Amino acid sequence: MVRMMRKKGVEQHPNFRAMKHVPFEQFIQLVAHAGCVIGNSSCGVREAGAFGTPVINLGSRQTGRETGENVLHVRDADTHNKIYHALELQFGKRYPCSKIYGDGNAVPRILKFLRSIKLDEPLQKTFCFPPVKEAFSQDIDHILETQSALAVDLGGTNLRVAIVSMRGKIMKKYCKPNPKTYESRIQLILSMCEDALQDAVRLNCRILGVGVSTGGRVNPQEGVILHSTKLIQEWSSVDLRTPLSDTLHLPVWLDNDGNCAALAERKFGHGQGVENFVAIITGTGIGGGIVHHHELVHGSTFCAGELGHIMVSLDGPECTCGSRGCVEAYASGVALQREAKRLHDEDLLSLEGVELKKVEAVSAVHLISAARQGNTNAQAVLKTASTALGVAVVNILHMMNPSLVILSGVLASYYQSPIQDIISQRALVSSQSIKVVTSDLEEPALLGAASMVLDYSTRRTY
Amino acid sequence: MVRMMRKKGVEQHPNFRAMKHVPFEQFIQLVAHAGCVIGNSSCGVREAGAFGTPVINLGSRQTGRETGENVLHVRDADTHNKIYHALELQFGKRYPCSKIYGDGNAVPRILKFLRSIKLDEPLQKTFCFPPVKEAFSQDIDHILETQSALAVDLGGTNLRVAIVSMRGKIMKKYCKPNPKTYESRIQLILSMCEDALQDAVRLNCRILGVGVSTGGRVNPQEGVILHSTKLIQEWSSVDLRTPLSDTLHLPVWLDNDGNCAALAERKFGHGQGVENFVAIITGTGIGGGIVHHHELVHGSTFCAGELGHIMVSLDGPECTCGSRGCVEAYASGVALQREAKRLHDEDLLSLEGVELKKVEAVSAVHLISAARQGNTNAQAVLKTASTALGVAVVNILHMMNPSLVILSGVLASYYQSPIQDIISQRALVSSQSIKVVTSDLEEPALLGAASMVLDYSTRRTY
Repeated sequence: MVRMMRKKGVEQHPNFRAMKHVPFEQFIQLVAHAGCVIGNSSCGVREAGAFGTPVINLGSRQTGRETGENVLHVRDADTHNKIYHALELQFGKRYPCSKIYGDGNAVPRILKFLRSIKLDEPLQKTFCFPPVKEAFSQDIDHILETQSALAVDLGGTNLRVAIVSMRGKIMKKYCKPNPKTYESRIQLILSMCEDALQDAVRLNCRILGVGVSTGGRVNPQEGVILHSTKLIQEWSSVDLRTPLSDTLHLPVWLDNDGNCAALAERKFGHGQGVENFVAIITGTGIGGGIVHHHELVHGSTFCAGELGHIMVSLDGPECTCGSRGCVEAYASGVALQREAKRLHDEDLLSLEGVELKKVEAVSAVHLISAARQGNTNAQAVLKTASTALGVAVVNILHMMNPSLVILSGVLASYYQSPIQDIISQRALVSSQSIKVVTSDLEEPALLGAASMVLDYSTRRTY
Repeated sequence: MVRMMRKKGVEQHPNFRAMKHVPFEQFIQLVAHAGCVIGNSSCGVREAGAFGTPVINLGSRQTGRETGENVLHVRDADTHNKIYHALELQFGKRYPCSKIYGDGNAVPRILKFLRSIKLDEPLQKTFCFPPVKEAFSQDIDHILETQSALAVDLGGTNLRVAIVSMRGKIMKKYCKPNPKTYESRIQLILSMCEDALQDAVRLNCRILGVGVSTGGRVNPQEGVILHSTKLIQEWSSVDLRTPLSDTLHLPVWLDNDGNCAALAERKFGHGQGVENFVAIITGTGIGGGIVHHHELVHGSTFCAGELGHIMVSLDGPECTCGSRGCVEAYASGVALQREAKRLHDEDLLSLEGVELKKVEAVSAVHLISAARQGNTNAQAVLKTASTALGVAVVNILHMMNPSLVILSGVLASYYQSPIQDIISQRALVSSQSIKVVTSDLEEPALLGAASMVLDYSTRRTY
């Protein structure tokens, strides 16, 4: 039997009136046993699939809804012929039970969940919204206590911990040399965090969680450091979240230092409200993070945003990564120091009126001041370094086309203007309007680590 | 007066029972005139804001919900002191009417919309869901007619139109030289599309819309070609959607050829179901598109994915874009032809047993066959070209970290293996697992143009 369902366009059908006041359970029974359901009701495209009942969906009313394989659409129900043809194909057929709205195991799952609830503890309805970007309302705890994060920054040299307030103020900072082994490093992180937690009470700071910025490649979902370079030893395949959250009883977020710098800009810096931007750190090395549609790009193996290893030469100087011609090998602090040392050793870095002894440690600072005072060798080195960094930035523009590039790190203010020059010389016309600014943030790694806590602490998942 | 609201934790309050059966309108009136609302009901965090009534929100039940500035949270309502303090701050205050749920002009907007409706035409409820990725159900029109797209490909040389079926079969293809002026180009597109629409009826194809792939930079939302190179003249700041949709009475999508190649892979090629991948076309020029989280990356000025203009050298050969050292200037068909011609002119492309006259047009094909037969000059040129393309691909890996790189275009099969070699030599360890494959698609531009129609024709917006 073909059942017509109660919807516009089929209302004139004699069965319509009879169906209209049938209770829902009985209606569903009818649908389950029908030879075919025809009409434009959601009952056809949704419920009927669970019974494998063939459905002919007339017209475009349900267009855009997910449907099971039991449904045959006659979207343009413009000829009798089409509908007859559809009936010939569908009538009397049986389809397998459609699993598009689940796999049919909701009942055991619900039972399992209900059994997991401890009935002697109070139950509370919760909201799992995405984090509220701009909270206009206040919290009495914000008046009585400062909502804060514990930020941890693991670098090649130092291990730093800070208490960071909701507004990005660093309330207290702790710094020790980063230990060389996994065991002593974890112990030191924990003891520094425990000290900070005690200080936080005295500072009237409420710690919402722990955010970690670390060198190396990180899986932020799992809270695992996948791989680190030699700069941080015994720091590959390390689950950092578990020991920290087990001991400190706080939620723990982590990401690498480049991504944390980008997160810091998003929350506290020039990246606030900017949909697509790139943060580049030019310090000892070169790193960074890419924000696309307001979110970090992590990539398929958490290796996106490795901006220091954009190659700007087919050969070029050797890089610590094992390749050649990476922008880090041209423009990082270490690269500039290498060149400064070379010039100094060859006695080519001499400055008028400045005595620089051969034994003194030369650095990028000497190179820059020599260039400013007219030393052409230093100028040539810095021109190459700036061109390399500029070309790397143009490559970023041509790939991701952000609207803003934010430079941070000790060399940021030096590089800003040359990069802007290279963009106007070498970028496509349509990319030349992109702005390059230097960061105003003093501690991008710590602030970025804190921002994960402050932004995500209302989330239910990492 | 302080009103307690009916929720868990405050149920013991004497006002609770009295409030429970107050009708909603009266309840809202009470909230509007209260000196302060205290409790954990959504009425406090939502409705009360409209009246500027101060609210004290107790506990974490409403955590994660957007609230107006009238709300003072006491999330840890753990001490009487906190609640008293909050009452001191809030009681008797008035806040401005909160606009967080709108600007208060819903009524005139609804009236304006209702007045716009033509009451003599039938009204139909519609669903505005995102497009259904995998439709299991069938459409009678798919059985009686083939759902199809009209695809248009505007290249430097040719203007092509094709009827493309839902499954990616090219049912019929039309090709003419691309005219040199805007006027004659638009006229030719329209007349070719009209011919195709007539043929579509004979081929039993139902055309759902028009998809256009074009050289140049495109704003797909507006349907505008922003800028083209000299290859397609009079093709900047061109609104292509309006004339096409006005004349053909079909929805029109457009994007540039690189992005269309990526879309083609996403729907019909190796990119099916892959979350993050990059498509690179190596033909006359080099182009491509980046798919991140299953969607194209367009960037802030629709200039993302300009993969041919990734620079792999600080100087290097001149590029058509005005810069130097772009990968297109090393590895495109035009670049290889330039090098082949140079070698041929210097008589360095001679092959054993093969006579190549000086007047004959040399191309990349000659270069490749000469290299295969042992010509070391040709081998050196191709090695540099391959290295350049490989370095550009590694740069993409270090920036976006896709899981797959798909090569298409005439040179794809030649470049595949050298690129894989460069990745293993020069990419970071964590990026070396990325696969490089060659496309199986014969017409990426046409198929990508068609895919916009086939994927998006259930969308209400472009």
